[in-house]
Amino acid sequence: MERFSCEVVAVGTELLLGQIVDTNSSWIGEQLALNGIESYFQTKVGDNPERIKKTLKQAIGRSDFVIVCGGLGPTQDDLTRDVIAEVMGVELVTDEELVERIAAIFGNRGREMPLNNLRQAQVPVGAETLSVMPGTAPGLKAVINGKTLYAVPGVPWEMKQMVLEDILPDMRAKAGISSIIGSKTLRTWGDSESGLSEKLAQEIERLDQVGGATIAFLASGIEGLKVRLTTKGDSKSEVEDALNTEADIVSSILGDEIIFSYDDQTMEEVVLGICKDKGLTLGVAESLTGGLIGSRLTSVSGSSEVFKGSIVAYSSDVKHAILKTPDVPSVSQAAAEAMAVGACRALNADIGLAVTGEAGPEPLEEEVGRVWMATSVGGVVKSSTVKWPFDRERIRQFTTITVLNALRLRLKEEI
Amino acid sequence: MERFSCEVVAVGTELLLGQIVDTNSSWIGEQLALNGIESYFQTKVGDNPERIKKTLKQAIGRSDFVIVCGGLGPTQDDLTRDVIAEVMGVELVTDEELVERIAAIFGNRGREMPLNNLRQAQVPVGAETLSVMPGTAPGLKAVINGKTLYAVPGVPWEMKQMVLEDILPDMRAKAGISSIIGSKTLRTWGDSESGLSEKLAQEIERLDQVGGATIAFLASGIEGLKVRLTTKGDSKSEVEDALNTEADIVSSILGDEIIFSYDDQTMEEVVLGICKDKGLTLGVAESLTGGLIGSRLTSVSGSSEVFKGSIVAYSSDVKHAILKTPDVPSVSQAAAEAMAVGACRALNADIGLAVTGEAGPEPLEEEVGRVWMATSVGGVVKSSTVKWPFDRERIRQFTTITVLNALRLRLKEEI
Repeated sequence: MERFSCEVVAVGTELLLGQIVDTNSSWIGEQLALNGIESYFQTKVGDNPERIKKTLKQAIGRSDFVIVCGGLGPTQDDLTRDVIAEVMGVELVTDEELVERIAAIFGNRGREMPLNNLRQAQVPVGAETLSVMPGTAPGLKAVINGKTLYAVPGVPWEMKQMVLEDILPDMRAKAGISSIIGSKTLRTWGDSESGLSEKLAQEIERLDQVGGATIAFLASGIEGLKVRLTTKGDSKSEVEDALNTEADIVSSILGDEIIFSYDDQTMEEVVLGICKDKGLTLGVAESLTGGLIGSRLTSVSGSSEVFKGSIVAYSSDVKHAILKTPDVPSVSQAAAEAMAVGACRALNADIGLAVTGEAGPEPLEEEVGRVWMATSVGGVVKSSTVKWPFDRERIRQFTTITVLNALRLRLKEEI
Repeated sequence: MERFSCEVVAVGTELLLGQIVDTNSSWIGEQLALNGIESYFQTKVGDNPERIKKTLKQAIGRSDFVIVCGGLGPTQDDLTRDVIAEVMGVELVTDEELVERIAAIFGNRGREMPLNNLRQAQVPVGAETLSVMPGTAPGLKAVINGKTLYAVPGVPWEMKQMVLEDILPDMRAKAGISSIIGSKTLRTWGDSESGLSEKLAQEIERLDQVGGATIAFLASGIEGLKVRLTTKGDSKSEVEDALNTEADIVSSILGDEIIFSYDDQTMEEVVLGICKDKGLTLGVAESLTGGLIGSRLTSVSGSSEVFKGSIVAYSSDVKHAILKTPDVPSVSQAAAEAMAVGACRALNADIGLAVTGEAGPEPLEEEVGRVWMATSVGGVVKSSTVKWPFDRERIRQFTTITVLNALRLRLKEEI
């Protein structure tokens, strides 16, 4: 079957000057792929009517659909409407219904509509406005030489809503695409990308042959290493079933030690969730991470039900005074274990979690990258060590997710 | 004077699918602007030889220079070399010197060169390799119909080094551009973008008329609100002098209360620097920020000379037990002040800094966004409050930079 193609044109001199990175086109490209529409070209062009016109004409000439993004605002620099009218060879007319809609939006905010915004109510004769209009900039749709051109504002949340709710369904109908695409992200920790891809090689090959789901890997730092399953089907429930079946297969290969979440939850959410289910509170003692563990845990709303606090002991006298660590080297197994116990005591928590290590760039007490981690659960302390070959920031980030994962595994096994 | 233009073509199907955001083109666009070269179009195209060829031909037809980015790797998907040869109408030949250079790079890493990498040593007849070669992918330069086409790898650090050290100087020479462009970033906190632009309106107008430096604003969250000065001159020292003169003028208008750094230092670096100069140590007590203040301070290497630690008191019993706060509401002036004093005591620090507040999304004790901040310097406690109209994450971030700024101002005034 011939596949339909859509080209994206992003309008704005600020994009060419690098003042704004064009993430809109990337996002649209991803959505097109998910909906089975090909994407061959994406172009950025400045706020110049001649060059926008040439770019749109070329795009209409070589693609089935065109999405032009940006240049729909109320100022004189916003040229997309005018250029579309010119490409269509028609006039712009003021749409009185749009005037009222825009005026009403200002009215709801208790403000008068500036006269400039009248420009936004202008529509090329023969073009339609998109039914979805999240802001004050109406989107446009025009058929030119049998091809469909859509114009959306550059404001990401307005653009996204129009693309998802209006443009993609329209394109799918025109292209005769009835299948639905869905994806599911499993998050993992504890294996490398090449390790995962080796373990899953046979399954990936099998999927290639039967044409089922696809599997992609995405290294995401402190968010873990993501495994994304994508599949296509005729209905939402069919797609969901297929994704769940595939997730079970991947899970049986990788195991729950490696996979920490099946629904895109962060490691912090997973650990806080387990603690909450068990009715356990958590206290942290951290040195090299400097507050990062606490900061990540408290980025989850509702964390206060579980998380009592963290002792950021950046100097050894704080370790001694508050955590009551004995007179041992700061970066050592004994220090980490005493810190975990100290966190429970000082913060009156059921579970203690501690890290100490050398973040660099210069070694102070130990080789750079050496980290000791400890967890205290039910009064029993366990510890482990790792030597990271990374820079300061990554040492801190990888330590954070690793110690949280160690706690997750202990709680899963022991409680 | 007619200005020269350069078009950027980014090659890679993964760019169209949104798997990678094309930040390379944005970065190149910024560099071109800084060097006085116009940028009219930027195009993304997939790994398809016909479409790459059409895109390159069009770019050569309408621009003076073309930079094509990506597709220079060792795999069969890397088509840029082949397409350039086709556009030039010539063969690819193996450059023996390049073979040796690439083999030597592998040798230095103690590895044998895979045969695939021989592809990277192929050069279209009549094209040159760029002299700068940071990785194993050589850059190319070819003159086609009097226009110059440069090819660079998509790996950002390799691409950037080639553009900065090889391509831009070459373009400037060809375009007869001798002037140098430089910029200087002042960081501010405590005023809005519109507030700053109002205060600087007269100066911006004056600069417009005399054609001196330009002033741009960039809101950067926890990094502050940046004011970037850019100017052009015939020599490095002339540019530096002009930037320093302009920085003095901006400084006299905005003042040091607003401007916290003149050389792109972060707020954490500035505060740690002041403390270090004065020989003072710092302790933190934080609730709603959950460790973010400590985490930011310790992201600065060498922070252990000043920063003693942080008590992340996420539950009120921790506030009472470790910080010895009295029996007052958790989010209150009295709590914040007691926490600052408690941080000094518990962490044995000269200076105490504390925040408590309601980060939301649901109000627990106070309205969402209400934050109390306190600093203790020389035993004297000062406090202030703010009500942020933001979401949880921004409330935490803005609180962090605001309380650090409050400490900066106190230390500047009092010590």
